[in-house]
Amino acid sequence: MRLRNVKNKEEILNQSKYLIKNPDDYCGKWNALFQNQNPIYIEIGVGKGKFIKENAKKYPNINFIGIEKFDSILAKALNHIEEEYSNLYFIRMDALEIDKVFFKEIRKIYLNFSDPWPKKRHHLRRLTSPIFLDKYDVIFKEKKEIEMRTDNRELFEYSLEEISKKGYVLESVSLDLHSKEEVFITTEYEDKFVSRGMTIYSLDATSSVQKSK
Amino acid sequence: MRLRNVKNKEEILNQSKYLIKNPDDYCGKWNALFQNQNPIYIEIGVGKGKFIKENAKKYPNINFIGIEKFDSILAKALNHIEEEYSNLYFIRMDALEIDKVFFKEIRKIYLNFSDPWPKKRHHLRRLTSPIFLDKYDVIFKEKKEIEMRTDNRELFEYSLEEISKKGYVLESVSLDLHSKEEVFITTEYEDKFVSRGMTIYSLDATSSVQKSK
Repeated sequence: MRLRNVKNKEEILNQSKYLIKNPDDYCGKWNALFQNQNPIYIEIGVGKGKFIKENAKKYPNINFIGIEKFDSILAKALNHIEEEYSNLYFIRMDALEIDKVFFKEIRKIYLNFSDPWPKKRHHLRRLTSPIFLDKYDVIFKEKKEIEMRTDNRELFEYSLEEISKKGYVLESVSLDLHSKEEVFITTEYEDKFVSRGMTIYSLDATSSVQKSK
Repeated sequence: MRLRNVKNKEEILNQSKYLIKNPDDYCGKWNALFQNQNPIYIEIGVGKGKFIKENAKKYPNINFIGIEKFDSILAKALNHIEEEYSNLYFIRMDALEIDKVFFKEIRKIYLNFSDPWPKKRHHLRRLTSPIFLDKYDVIFKEKKEIEMRTDNRELFEYSLEEISKKGYVLESVSLDLHSKEEVFITTEYEDKFVSRGMTIYSLDATSSVQKSK
């Protein structure tokens, strides 16, 4: 997402009841925060938050946590919360810290239109690189599941390979998601891309969590 | 491939020294026919044979066997063999019989522009359906490897899923093979498609063969 400075972003972040300022404190205890045992889905990189907010509204029996690195983007997501949610929080952090914030408690990870990091020397920064896949191993509970969408062909090719090498099974793959006549929740980005006729790739991959000995 | 009748096809087939008329007899013994222990690669559905003949020429230390169901197509492939090959044979048969013709002796399977069988009730006829993947298990030696190319998006999506569910790892995936500046051997079909600007999908998937107890 293009970084445009948002006025009074600090104020928005400080005042939002949906932003968890001390996420480390909840590591391993996020279900206690939600006060239920419903599954927890996270989205890494929320943009303006359309996708996760619409999901939270549609699926009240799932808990959602949106992770975003950039203040300005997060401020926009937090500034446009018009509903009341008891199943939605946001965290401002770098995804590299994810294994310090969650521990064996996540049911699904959404990766929507992540930074493609096109240069070869930056590939390990991709959210489906072995570095991140190892971190995700730490946070999943019972079953691993990654759902990914992107318009970037090379990122998608890379992700199919890396996710497969990590032992995930591809439950579903679409090489032109919007060619199907299904109704589903989209991101802001996606709506813009699709209106321009761009192809959206998607995958849903699962793997069982290995029991620790 | 479009089925156009080939005159004197029976004669071509009968007279070709590259056609193995009694393939069942070699089951488990194909390396003896080649008189070496080089790896054996097969292509299921050879078209006019461009791909497998060019491979056989380029890689003399690999044995190639082309499988084709239709007489007329195979006659064309056999009618245009201009080189002398000691590492190339053809078989006329339905791929459903493949596990009666090979046993633990194949190193790699090529599936190039296979019939997409678009109707849902025909999906099990696809060469990457569970029915065929089970048969391939019988014929692989030491390591399984499938290399696939197609212009058909739905066949490719299906194949990514089914191959992954069968425990293969995606070593490489391309969603636009000809966007890369590599030189590689193509099929007749592929040349035609690419000249029309069509996208070619490809994958290379491997899996270890489980030792029988």
